[in-house]
Amino acid sequence: MLAGGSMYDFQLILKHVLEHGVRWAPKQEIVYRDLVRYTYEDLYERVHRLASALEEIGVKKGTKVAVLDWDTHRYLECYFAVPMMGAILHNVNVRLSLEDILYTMKHAEDEVVLVNREFLPLIEKIKDKLDTVKNYVILTDDEMPETDLTDLEYEEMLKKASKDYEFPDLDEKTTATLGYTTGTTGRPKGVYFNHRQLVLHTLAVALEFAAYEDYWVSFRSNDVYMPLTPMFHVHAWGIPYVATLLGVKQVYPGRYEPRRIAELVKKEGVTLSHCVPTILNMVLSALKEDERLDGWKVVIGGSKLPKGLALKAIEKGIKITSGYGMSETCPVLTIAKLKPELLSLSDEEKIEYYVKTGFPIPFVYLRVVKEDWKDVEPNERDMGEIVVRAPWLTPEYLKDPEKTKELWEGGWLHTGDIAVVDKHGYVNIVDRIKDVIKSGGEWISSLTLESLISTHPAVQEVAVVGIPDEKWGERPLAVIVVKKEFEGKVSEEEIKKHLMKFVEEGKITKWAVPDKIVFVNEIPKTSVGKINKRALKDMFSG
Amino acid sequence: MLAGGSMYDFQLILKHVLEHGVRWAPKQEIVYRDLVRYTYEDLYERVHRLASALEEIGVKKGTKVAVLDWDTHRYLECYFAVPMMGAILHNVNVRLSLEDILYTMKHAEDEVVLVNREFLPLIEKIKDKLDTVKNYVILTDDEMPETDLTDLEYEEMLKKASKDYEFPDLDEKTTATLGYTTGTTGRPKGVYFNHRQLVLHTLAVALEFAAYEDYWVSFRSNDVYMPLTPMFHVHAWGIPYVATLLGVKQVYPGRYEPRRIAELVKKEGVTLSHCVPTILNMVLSALKEDERLDGWKVVIGGSKLPKGLALKAIEKGIKITSGYGMSETCPVLTIAKLKPELLSLSDEEKIEYYVKTGFPIPFVYLRVVKEDWKDVEPNERDMGEIVVRAPWLTPEYLKDPEKTKELWEGGWLHTGDIAVVDKHGYVNIVDRIKDVIKSGGEWISSLTLESLISTHPAVQEVAVVGIPDEKWGERPLAVIVVKKEFEGKVSEEEIKKHLMKFVEEGKITKWAVPDKIVFVNEIPKTSVGKINKRALKDMFSG
Repeated sequence: MLAGGSMYDFQLILKHVLEHGVRWAPKQEIVYRDLVRYTYEDLYERVHRLASALEEIGVKKGTKVAVLDWDTHRYLECYFAVPMMGAILHNVNVRLSLEDILYTMKHAEDEVVLVNREFLPLIEKIKDKLDTVKNYVILTDDEMPETDLTDLEYEEMLKKASKDYEFPDLDEKTTATLGYTTGTTGRPKGVYFNHRQLVLHTLAVALEFAAYEDYWVSFRSNDVYMPLTPMFHVHAWGIPYVATLLGVKQVYPGRYEPRRIAELVKKEGVTLSHCVPTILNMVLSALKEDERLDGWKVVIGGSKLPKGLALKAIEKGIKITSGYGMSETCPVLTIAKLKPELLSLSDEEKIEYYVKTGFPIPFVYLRVVKEDWKDVEPNERDMGEIVVRAPWLTPEYLKDPEKTKELWEGGWLHTGDIAVVDKHGYVNIVDRIKDVIKSGGEWISSLTLESLISTHPAVQEVAVVGIPDEKWGERPLAVIVVKKEFEGKVSEEEIKKHLMKFVEEGKITKWAVPDKIVFVNEIPKTSVGKINKRALKDMFSG
Repeated sequence: MLAGGSMYDFQLILKHVLEHGVRWAPKQEIVYRDLVRYTYEDLYERVHRLASALEEIGVKKGTKVAVLDWDTHRYLECYFAVPMMGAILHNVNVRLSLEDILYTMKHAEDEVVLVNREFLPLIEKIKDKLDTVKNYVILTDDEMPETDLTDLEYEEMLKKASKDYEFPDLDEKTTATLGYTTGTTGRPKGVYFNHRQLVLHTLAVALEFAAYEDYWVSFRSNDVYMPLTPMFHVHAWGIPYVATLLGVKQVYPGRYEPRRIAELVKKEGVTLSHCVPTILNMVLSALKEDERLDGWKVVIGGSKLPKGLALKAIEKGIKITSGYGMSETCPVLTIAKLKPELLSLSDEEKIEYYVKTGFPIPFVYLRVVKEDWKDVEPNERDMGEIVVRAPWLTPEYLKDPEKTKELWEGGWLHTGDIAVVDKHGYVNIVDRIKDVIKSGGEWISSLTLESLISTHPAVQEVAVVGIPDEKWGERPLAVIVVKKEFEGKVSEEEIKKHLMKFVEEGKITKWAVPDKIVFVNEIPKTSVGKINKRALKDMFSG
C-alpha cells in the first residue's frame, strides 16, 4: 500500500542543473578569454539553439557526439545540450596519440564530431578511417577555415537554428557522457556516466565546497570559476556543472598559456580553479617577481601536491589544497579539507593535511584494504589499495568485460592506488598498485623510497622497483643516477646509511631498505616521459 | 550497449546521511536540554542499539512505528533507526485532537508506539481502540511511570540491546516516514516519503543554506542547530537530517517553553532555528528588556512572517527570513534569500524580500497558474495557485485516491495557496484558494483586504469573505469588529474611503473594494481559534 508512484516521477537530469542556475542568476557572466562575454540567459538560449542545430544534422537519443576542443564557452554549451537531448557527449582527450584518438573515436562509434579548427589537421589525417562519423562541425573563433571535411560551422549553425527546442524529460539512467582513461599501459579504456550520476556528483561536490565554514578553498555563489583541468578530462572535475547550478561567474581560458591564465585570474577576478601540479608550477613560473595572485584558490589533483609547490603558491597569495579522483570516478572522491579537530593547528601543520590525498566527500565510501580485504590500521604505515563505492562510478569499461571484472572485483571499484590512513581518517596515496613492492607479505612503497633517497645530496634521479626474490617474493631495488659532481663519490653503503636515518625516525621499516642499489647513467622513460618501471624490472630481474 | 548496470548500485538511503556526519565529526555534540549531552559517535551507537531493540519486539521491513514525543535526542535516534531498518516512522502530530490522533494511528496501522510519558494519559484513553498496536515503549527522562500499558522503557531497552545491528542496503524507494496533514477541514490526510526523497531534500536544502555567500541566514558546519518547528511536523523541516549530514552541533529543547528556548540559545550558542511566527513572538515576549539573542538566525514558515515581527526580532540581534513548504512537500519549496541583483538594496528594502514567501530552492519547479494553467504575469498583482514539481513530494494521500487526484491534477502538486510573483521571480502568498474571492473572472485576496482594513485605527478584527453574486459570481464582504472606544463612531463609507487610498497607491484594484461592510460584535472561530470563514459565508450569503 505504501509503494504508490508519484504522479510526477522527478528524474535527476542535467536539465534541472542548468535551469536552476539560469533562473537564479540570469544576468550572471560567462567569459571566454577576451573574446566572448555573455550571460546565463544567453547560455540557455544557445544551448537550445545548439540542440536544434544538432537535431537537424541527425543527432537523436543515443547518438555519440564527439568534441575536440580547448576550454571554451562552446564546450560548456555541449556539456549541457548534448546530454540534455539524450545524446552522449564523448569528450575526446586531445592529448592522446593520434593512433589512440582514432582508436577511441572508433571504439565510441562517434557519429557527429565537433572539432576546434586547431585540431583540424589531426582529424584530417584520420578521417578516412572514422567510418561511423556522418557529420563534422568546425569550432572557430575566427572565420571558417578552408577544409573539404565539412561546411558546417558552429556559430553559423546556431544563428540559423531555432531557440525553441524542447528538451525531453529523460530517464535519469540515460547515458550522458563518455570518456577514456589515460593509463600508461594498453589502449585507453572507455568509462561513462549517466544523468543521475552527474547530478548527484554536482550536488555532493557543491555541498563539499560550500558547507564547511572554515574550509579555506571554499566555492560559493560569489566565487569566480575557471577550469585548469581540461574540459576533455572527466568533465573538468564536474565543476562547470557545479558552477552553473550555483549561478557563479565562469571564465574559460581556451588553451592553457601561463601568462594568459595569470592575466585572466587578475582581470576577471577568478577565485577558484583546479589543476595538476605541473600547470600550477607553469603559472607560478610565469609570474613576475612582485606579481601576486591574491584571492585565487586552487585545488590540486591528478598527482600528488608537492609541499614545496604548495609553499611557493601560498607565498604568492594563493590558497591551495588537494583533491583526488580518477577517470573511472566522475571524478571527485576526496578533498583535503580540515576536520573540526584540526582547525586549531598552526599554518605550518595545516599544510601537512592540505598535501594529503584527503577525506571522502559525502556519499563516498572509501576503504583502504589489504589483499585479504581487511582494512588497514590508521597508523600512516599500514598500506592497502583504495577501493570505493559512490553514486557516481563508471559501471564498467566499455565493451571490455574482462577489465570490468577486475575493476569491480568484490563489488568495490578498485582504484589501483596504494595508500595509508591516519588516525583522523585522512587518506594518503603512497604508490600505484603495479609499482608497490610486495615483500614477505608486507608492502613497500616505491614512491616513498624514491622520495627519501632523493633527499640525499648526490642523487639526481632515482627509481625503485621490486625484483623477484625466491624467499620473499619481491625485494626492492633502487636505481640511481648521481649528479655530475658526485660521480664515483657515492657508494651503495652510503645510500643505505642515509635510509637508516629514516628507519630510526620511524618513517619506513628496516625491511623497506633495498638490498641492492645500482648506479646507472640513465633511467629508461616511457613515451610520455614517465619512468619506465616495467623496463627496469626486466633489466634487473634475475 | 551503454545501459549496463554498475556492479554496485548505490542507493540514496538515510544510512549514508548519518554515516557521513559521524565519520566527519565523531566528537561533535548533541544536546538535549540540560539533561543529556553526547557525541555523534554515541548517536551512531544508540541508533544501532535502538534498531536491535526494535527488531527484538518484532519491527521489520514495512512495520509502522509511531512516535509521540517532544523534540528530543531520542526522537532524532528514531529519525534514523526506524527508516534505516526499512520500517516506517509515523510522526504522530500530538497537537491534533484525541479523536484525530486515534484516527491517524488506526489509519496508519501502527504496530509499535514509542510514547513520551507526558502523552501516556492520552494514549491510555484510546488504547483499547488501537487494535493494530502490538507494543508500546515509554520515553522518559525520569524513572518508568506506573502504567499497565507496557513494561518496556526506551533507555532500558537500549542498554540491553546489541550495538552490532547491521542496517540493510535498502532500495531507495523504500517508504521511510509517514505523517498527517493538519488541514482545518475534514480528517487529517496521510502523506509519506521514501529514502530517496529525504536524501535529495537533505542535499538540496543543505546546499541552499550553504552555497550563497551573502545569504544572511546561512547554515554551515560551524552553526549550532535547534529545531523550533516540532519534530512531529514534516521532519522538523528536514533540518535534523541536514545538520547530521554536516556534522553540526545539535540542541533539542524538549517541549517549547519560551524562557528555556532563550536560555538554550544563549548557553549552547544556538545559531539556527526555524519556527512559525507565534513561537518567535513567544520567545521575544519572554526576553527581558535588555536581553538580546545576537547571532541567532531564524527561518519563519507555516504562516506569513509579519514585517513588525521581523523588525522586532532584528532589534534583538536576530537575523530572520522566510521559508515555505507544507506537509505534502517534505517540506521545503522556497527560501526568501536575496538574488545577486538585490544585494545592493538598503536594509530597509531587503526586509521586504525577507518577508516574502521566497524563491524556489534547487530542483523545485514552482509555477503560479490561473485556472486555465497560464502562468501569472510577474507584476505582483496577477494571482494564481502555486503548483509544484520536485524530487520530494508525497506521491499521494494515503488510501485516498479521490483527494490524491485533486492534489496531483494535471501532473503538478496543487498547494492550495494563492500567490503573486514579482519581476525577480519571488513568490508571495496572498491567500488560500478556498478563501480567495473569484469576482467576474478576477481573483481578490481576502488576506490582502483584511491586512489593509486592519490598518484603520478603529478596527479590532476583520474577516473578508466572498459571497455569491448573481452577476459577478462572488463579491467581497468585510466583517468588522470595532474597538470599544470607536463603537458607533465608524461608518461603512469611512472604511471604503480608507481602502480607496490603497487603490490610488496601486496596492489593490478598485474592483477589490468590498461592496458591503458589516459591523459585528464577534467573529466566529473554529476549534483551533482560526476565523471560521465558512460560517461567515453561510451567515451572509443571500
